[in-house]
Amino acid sequence: MIDRITADRPQPDGTLLGPGDDAAVVAAPDGRVVATVDTLVQGVHFRLDWSGPEQVGRKAVAANLADVAAMGAIPTALLLSLACPASTSTEVVDGLAAGIWDAASEAGVGVVGGDTVSADQIVVSITALGDLEGRAPVRRSGAKVGDVVAVRGVLGWSAAGMEVLRRGFRSPVAMVAAHRTPRPPFTEGPVAARAGATAMVDTSDGLLADLGHIAAASRVRIDVRSELVPVADKLRDVASALGKDALAWALTGGEDHALVACFREEDAVPDGWTVCADVRLGTGVSVDADRWGGAGDPGWRHWR
Amino acid sequence: MIDRITADRPQPDGTLLGPGDDAAVVAAPDGRVVATVDTLVQGVHFRLDWSGPEQVGRKAVAANLADVAAMGAIPTALLLSLACPASTSTEVVDGLAAGIWDAASEAGVGVVGGDTVSADQIVVSITALGDLEGRAPVRRSGAKVGDVVAVRGVLGWSAAGMEVLRRGFRSPVAMVAAHRTPRPPFTEGPVAARAGATAMVDTSDGLLADLGHIAAASRVRIDVRSELVPVADKLRDVASALGKDALAWALTGGEDHALVACFREEDAVPDGWTVCADVRLGTGVSVDADRWGGAGDPGWRHWR
Repeated sequence: MIDRITADRPQPDGTLLGPGDDAAVVAAPDGRVVATVDTLVQGVHFRLDWSGPEQVGRKAVAANLADVAAMGAIPTALLLSLACPASTSTEVVDGLAAGIWDAASEAGVGVVGGDTVSADQIVVSITALGDLEGRAPVRRSGAKVGDVVAVRGVLGWSAAGMEVLRRGFRSPVAMVAAHRTPRPPFTEGPVAARAGATAMVDTSDGLLADLGHIAAASRVRIDVRSELVPVADKLRDVASALGKDALAWALTGGEDHALVACFREEDAVPDGWTVCADVRLGTGVSVDADRWGGAGDPGWRHWR
Repeated sequence: MIDRITADRPQPDGTLLGPGDDAAVVAAPDGRVVATVDTLVQGVHFRLDWSGPEQVGRKAVAANLADVAAMGAIPTALLLSLACPASTSTEVVDGLAAGIWDAASEAGVGVVGGDTVSADQIVVSITALGDLEGRAPVRRSGAKVGDVVAVRGVLGWSAAGMEVLRRGFRSPVAMVAAHRTPRPPFTEGPVAARAGATAMVDTSDGLLADLGHIAAASRVRIDVRSELVPVADKLRDVASALGKDALAWALTGGEDHALVACFREEDAVPDGWTVCADVRLGTGVSVDADRWGGAGDPGWRHWR
């Protein structure tokens, strides 16, 4: 099956040996390799009645590429582990493969290897490799008091799209597409690294939760200024129509895979990034100086 | 959960950045990285009533390390994707993690990253990375007419162990252990590469099937001399007791992850390897010059 998935797919120059042997060989010009794995499970992370298989494939790749980008690295290769029931239709398998390949190709990488196995439900696990181009990795632990925090990419769109689908709608298309196939701005990860980002993460769990990871690793407090958080007009429209809070989606919605990075000063923030928080003495994350204690925090709910 | 799995585990020097960030960073001194993924599914590849969780973890690692070894590379790091039901006991998760870590540590590598997700059944997917130490990868396609073929590691032991377990027995221990936790001679992969191996593979599908992969990729025929195939006395004893054919196990039993390599001449074969076949003009695999057409081949069954 892996042969069929990888047949006739062009491999970039960095794929020194592609699928078909016991293992692949990928260029690691930096002398170091960035590596991450991310797994999507049918019924848990995706539903094939909400998303087509191509979209699921794209989503699995997007989550991985965002993790590579959040280190400041460029992606170099993907490996695929695909578990699915023997009864899975050819259309679904080919669709998954097409989505994975299309997203990989757009990022300039190949699927260099894989394993397909039989299982009771579809489990798509993707490993992404990346190259740091000689730079230090941008870790979660590098934020310093006085840094500014900027975001690149959409916030809350995936959560809005999921709510739309949950209610049986199919539009607005932009939000539904953002849920089905998030398009993280992964080329901006190296941009931020070159601009001197001190810490970076992608918003897989939601802006506040992921800023919490930086705050914990860096032993600082991050204060979000809610009026600076980018909330698209479209997001406000959907929230209003569904009786939801657009800012709450932007602050806590997951799976957008936007990039959030800290910089020593506002002048260092690259074009296209939006400053929305700053780094202070203390611990945890606050919104407009009010402590945020996580999704179940009463202090959070009062203004949600 | 990944935090608990990776906590307090020492990482080797090659792990430049371990678990806890968006991605790991691993040394790739060669400027290339070898990468492979292998997935085990509960009920398909393992049964927790036949194998303990530690054994399953070890087995998943062994299969991956054998793939890295079969390229002539040394392993450098593992990444783990663990899908399991929410009801999975702490003992099972900790056991899987312990088995993975123990096998990784013995190979001198760390588990540098991972993802744990909820699913209906346990799916263990491991990605292994490796380093070629400046050598060319040993591919399946390099065998030439006139090469000798040698094997290192046990053959048929895993198949024998599975048959023992299927019949409700727990001994002989060596065979059962070989099925539960194969111990591939992965350090011998680089040894074969340094000795000039022209092609190499590990026996995951069985000696004849895996030689078939070399034959197909190299466009040659490989003739196995059955009297040279290493068949351990213990294997003969078990086969005799169960009314099975020890040679058939050695030729077609999978999951031993022995290494099989081609060399230009017998003098090049490293110590401890057993010559058991040679490379000829033609296609496919034969046994004592009789064509073997795969597991369902009548010509194969007649002497099985």
